[in-house]
Amino acid sequence: MQIVSIRTDHYRIPLPTVLSDSTHGNISHFALVTARVCTDDGLEGLGYTYTVGNIGGAAVHAVMERDLAPVLQGADPRRIEQLWEQMWWHVHFVGRGGLTAFAMAALDIALWDLKGKREGEPLWRLLGGHDPRVNVYAGGIDLQFTLDELMQQTEGFLQQGFHAIKMKAGRDRLSEDVERVAVMRDKLGPDFPLMVDANMRWSVAEAIRAAQALQPYGLYWLEEPIIPDDIDGHARIAREGSIPLATGENLHSVYEFQQMITRGHIAFPEPDVATVGGITPWLKIAHLAEMHNLPVTTHGVHDLQVHLLAAIPNASYLEVHGFGLDRFIVEPLKLVDGYALAPERPGHGVEMNWEALEGYRDV
Amino acid sequence: MQIVSIRTDHYRIPLPTVLSDSTHGNISHFALVTARVCTDDGLEGLGYTYTVGNIGGAAVHAVMERDLAPVLQGADPRRIEQLWEQMWWHVHFVGRGGLTAFAMAALDIALWDLKGKREGEPLWRLLGGHDPRVNVYAGGIDLQFTLDELMQQTEGFLQQGFHAIKMKAGRDRLSEDVERVAVMRDKLGPDFPLMVDANMRWSVAEAIRAAQALQPYGLYWLEEPIIPDDIDGHARIAREGSIPLATGENLHSVYEFQQMITRGHIAFPEPDVATVGGITPWLKIAHLAEMHNLPVTTHGVHDLQVHLLAAIPNASYLEVHGFGLDRFIVEPLKLVDGYALAPERPGHGVEMNWEALEGYRDV
Repeated sequence: MQIVSIRTDHYRIPLPTVLSDSTHGNISHFALVTARVCTDDGLEGLGYTYTVGNIGGAAVHAVMERDLAPVLQGADPRRIEQLWEQMWWHVHFVGRGGLTAFAMAALDIALWDLKGKREGEPLWRLLGGHDPRVNVYAGGIDLQFTLDELMQQTEGFLQQGFHAIKMKAGRDRLSEDVERVAVMRDKLGPDFPLMVDANMRWSVAEAIRAAQALQPYGLYWLEEPIIPDDIDGHARIAREGSIPLATGENLHSVYEFQQMITRGHIAFPEPDVATVGGITPWLKIAHLAEMHNLPVTTHGVHDLQVHLLAAIPNASYLEVHGFGLDRFIVEPLKLVDGYALAPERPGHGVEMNWEALEGYRDV
Repeated sequence: MQIVSIRTDHYRIPLPTVLSDSTHGNISHFALVTARVCTDDGLEGLGYTYTVGNIGGAAVHAVMERDLAPVLQGADPRRIEQLWEQMWWHVHFVGRGGLTAFAMAALDIALWDLKGKREGEPLWRLLGGHDPRVNVYAGGIDLQFTLDELMQQTEGFLQQGFHAIKMKAGRDRLSEDVERVAVMRDKLGPDFPLMVDANMRWSVAEAIRAAQALQPYGLYWLEEPIIPDDIDGHARIAREGSIPLATGENLHSVYEFQQMITRGHIAFPEPDVATVGGITPWLKIAHLAEMHNLPVTTHGVHDLQVHLLAAIPNASYLEVHGFGLDRFIVEPLKLVDGYALAPERPGHGVEMNWEALEGYRDV
């Protein structure tokens, strides 16, 4: 069995509404970079990745098209571990995570999709089959909302049946963050899971101060308080701030997660399958987390990650991503009563509406 | 004062001879990606980076042209720290080192070149001015040489006046590595600095065994015994193998060096200015090394790095790189009696022969 063709495409997709957080400023677009891998048994596997603001999108596409596709061409698609290792070493000099992990992810996901289609099994069952019903949380991109807007958004989330909510923090004054969290906790009641995401805005000292100030409000987790490069800083915040930390959307290799889990003392590893190199490393990270008695949450591409959380025994909440890819997916993920159900279609079951995407082609 | 234009170009350059080491296989080409930054005072700054085998070259060029050049356009070229930080955060979601560090490097180098030209000073004096005379070593890409070829190469190095030599290790059998090192030590005498480079071939256990087996031959350093992701592994090899380690050509951020220096217990940090994000982070790494009482060596682009080692008080040997860029540089670095002299021309003093390069344009 062999791979007979690989097609990669790059789209620049406008967001339904401009989003903003404490780090990325205003985000009006994202890049969608897709890979379609065909094998000589007539199957086609689909993989995709994305970038915020379309930044690096052309480069991700160039790595996929020029550097990685030739590695896979003609290879046996069933030897995923070997192909992943070959890709890793082929781009190693410019790689070791970073941008190349995005490109590898799309191709790796396509290989797993092929495997699922070949075996007639949905990925969630193929990869472990723990529980197809996955908890989701509603993630507000709401740093600049007024308190009124924050309450309106929250009311909407509750009406949609969400039973966990994440809000942004990292405003210019900590007292504003504290006030907003206090109002949210008051609204939601004492036991409702409420997460806070600072998008790397703080120093270690600021994060410890914030964690202490937010202590009365029983946060479910505090996400990305500081830059992901400061592993020891995470351990200090977790300990001195006495708060469970989530991080991982900016980590791009199993080694970075290994460090963050074993030395950074985070409570919720948050790998993004589309930016950490694909399903192959994602599963290893999830299993490492399990061995450290930690639940796993996710970032981005919820149509894919629902399978991953459904597969493993240590699933935390699935992030429902706000990039509005739903418009281009034939059967987007459906949420019922705050849960997502991993689909039964073979592979990941995501099919793109290529015609609708055509108008957004970038390169 | 402002930046008025940025021109980026990507060339695919054939190597004079095919090279091979224990990791990268046969290397027949490299990518040269250049940046020319012009300011409204009529100056032009040049920066460049490269990739092994041209892999990732198109992506590096895409990041420079599409993502980073717009950040610099119209900015004040003198605020290098601010521009560097802006570039870092602009590509952060796909960055944090990796491929984007190559693209940032070329632009950062161009900004420093502009600064030198503006002030009429060569970079080595602008950046510290410690000693323009820099020790160099001859680096053999000789893993597959016969013992006879190894001796011939060594004889040639000695006749050219080199007083330090690096050889490759990582053959299929350790006994072969040991034999080759023994023959080299016998040829060179007990005090001649002899380095060995394993290009990440070994596991930690294999590296410790190799370090112990090579103990009698008094290596100046053992380079890249294992993958750069295993920081604790380096510390173990240094301690249990009782050998000075060099590493850094595959590290792409100040944070990675900080970890490797403080926890990895390496003896010779080896930042590559063209792949670590440019002169701005290179200097910080060199100063961190000084604070840890460590000398700094280099990797790649010797025409640029001679300035950096000449600037600082803790310079070790300069690697003379084998990528044959000399053909395209108007005044390539000259070696006299095993030393390189940092040039007195303003900036880095490297001027490309653009006409000669034109035939090798990639994108």
